[in-house]
Amino acid sequence: MLRDLLHRVEPVSDSLRAAAVHRLDNLTKPVGSLGKLEELAVRMCCIQNKTHGIVADPLRIYAIAGDHGVNEEGVSAFTQDVTRQMVQNFCDGGAGINVLADTAGAELCVVDLASKGGTYPDHPSLLQCKIAQGTENISKAPAMSREMCIRALLIGAALADKAHSEGCPAIGTGEMGVSNTTPSTALYCSFLQLLPKDITGAGGGINAEGIKRKVRVIERALGLHADAIESGDPVEILASLGGYEIAALAGLILGGAANNQLVLLDGFIATAAYTAAWKLCPSVKDYAFFSHASAEAGHKKILEQLDIDPLHDLGLRLGEGSGVPLALFLMRCACNTYNQMTTYDDVRVDPPDNLPR
Amino acid sequence: MLRDLLHRVEPVSDSLRAAAVHRLDNLTKPVGSLGKLEELAVRMCCIQNKTHGIVADPLRIYAIAGDHGVNEEGVSAFTQDVTRQMVQNFCDGGAGINVLADTAGAELCVVDLASKGGTYPDHPSLLQCKIAQGTENISKAPAMSREMCIRALLIGAALADKAHSEGCPAIGTGEMGVSNTTPSTALYCSFLQLLPKDITGAGGGINAEGIKRKVRVIERALGLHADAIESGDPVEILASLGGYEIAALAGLILGGAANNQLVLLDGFIATAAYTAAWKLCPSVKDYAFFSHASAEAGHKKILEQLDIDPLHDLGLRLGEGSGVPLALFLMRCACNTYNQMTTYDDVRVDPPDNLPR
Repeated sequence: MLRDLLHRVEPVSDSLRAAAVHRLDNLTKPVGSLGKLEELAVRMCCIQNKTHGIVADPLRIYAIAGDHGVNEEGVSAFTQDVTRQMVQNFCDGGAGINVLADTAGAELCVVDLASKGGTYPDHPSLLQCKIAQGTENISKAPAMSREMCIRALLIGAALADKAHSEGCPAIGTGEMGVSNTTPSTALYCSFLQLLPKDITGAGGGINAEGIKRKVRVIERALGLHADAIESGDPVEILASLGGYEIAALAGLILGGAANNQLVLLDGFIATAAYTAAWKLCPSVKDYAFFSHASAEAGHKKILEQLDIDPLHDLGLRLGEGSGVPLALFLMRCACNTYNQMTTYDDVRVDPPDNLPR
Repeated sequence: MLRDLLHRVEPVSDSLRAAAVHRLDNLTKPVGSLGKLEELAVRMCCIQNKTHGIVADPLRIYAIAGDHGVNEEGVSAFTQDVTRQMVQNFCDGGAGINVLADTAGAELCVVDLASKGGTYPDHPSLLQCKIAQGTENISKAPAMSREMCIRALLIGAALADKAHSEGCPAIGTGEMGVSNTTPSTALYCSFLQLLPKDITGAGGGINAEGIKRKVRVIERALGLHADAIESGDPVEILASLGGYEIAALAGLILGGAANNQLVLLDGFIATAAYTAAWKLCPSVKDYAFFSHASAEAGHKKILEQLDIDPLHDLGLRLGEGSGVPLALFLMRCACNTYNQMTTYDDVRVDPPDNLPR
């Protein structure tokens, strides 16, 4: 079934690019003067296979929760209980992602995939599909079995399908998992041949001593799972060093690409999930929009290595999906200028002397 | 009356900074994890003199139109007629600034200050207060008289007052004036001791030959008005080398600061107006929010020299005020997270082990 998912993802055709650029050049503005908004519009035309009426709404953010056994190594400023507390906070509407999603007019769907503890009180914004009580401690064991990793991937893809069937042309990645910068960093090191000391950051806010400890924990994990890393098998690496919510986000990204949805990515954790998805299927890149360069150490270096130019650089390092609403607003600006501005043909405005015709 | 305006601008007090930071640190998120959104919230608390209920809405963008005699030197890809045509396009709702303002929920007020030609048909979004038929050619004469420059400055300040009295805590700068990157560049050179060859760009889209010509025109203008530049008098410099809409924007910025309004600035032209306002009254800096680094050559260097870190870097070079709606959305995100997120005191979320108390 994972193979079926990967087969569903097709590279985006460039066949409409010229028509999209022609329209942009004929809008009543200097050629190219909307910068990245124009690039976004062209990409949306190609993904949505149309040159009129491109859309970024409605967008649904899936904030997927999972816990991490490696928390016991002292790699976070927060206890594991906080994952559960924050899921409740998401349901109650008081977290950063709630406010930002509301501000941008994005829908938020909270998903409990693998947080510690029992079920939550029912809530219309909460999907409960718990498959585990968090991962094992990756410095001592594989995070999860290969089977469970695939299960998480397919759940993520099913979430993309659900949004698609419910009318969302766009999805966003969100997550909650105390300590999940640790497995994310381990994944970057495995997939991109980076060193823990070069990309390990403070996560939710540990001090310099804590960062040194975190580096040593990640180094131990990389050593323990050297065989998986050397195999180059993305699923094996994700199962050994990842997390349930990270695997599900990788599946969400793959599913979104399979559905020709716009896939808006948040920051450090989302990019780790993206990297796994991209290793499984390089064409996901065509569908991915990177919200921002995180302030988490290493993220800019990672984006550079992945040849990605993110939309914002605002020093954010909250996670939760918080960059997605900011990116959505820019995508909406790109759609609306493309769709709604008048052209030199429509109105009495003299075009510039250099307009390509 | 200009002196009265300058006296009304007071530096922003930092007295509420500590209380604002305390609230931010107690929101249910890692300390500092909202990055620049937190800086924006703190600045808004200080400007609005409150630690609860900061607001960025409603925001009114004034798009002020003026023509430029220097157009006859071949410094633009557009004819001067296009200023008038675009004012009409603004009224008809089809320009980039219309679509972006609508997308962000900003109000747009179009102001004819000094476009060539007669009055326009009445329109509810258009203020007609024409005081001239464009500037003189700055490579041959002063752009305008000192008296007319002051008149334009005071009209700009009156526009800020009008927005303030009509309930806008925030204003944005917009403009339309074919060739206005030329006077703007001349102003930067005069105020910041920069050389035309280092900061002259393509404006609405001239080629390399056109840019060379534009550099020579600006050099001639700087030579012709050397006395004004050497005087260091910002009004004299603005009158000699600026434009009516640029002077009015400088007044708008001063007026906004005098009213404790948030002043959101667009790109290359707006920053030139800001530089004049800042030379007249350095405290305007406390009220100014810079939307983006323009793709117009030189703007990043200029922002660096002014010690300004803009909110976006999207390769925009449209002008019209187009960056303001993008900045407004981020300001609104900053307000809403600050105002609406729950604190560690409100809900059952364990704070990080390093929370300053």
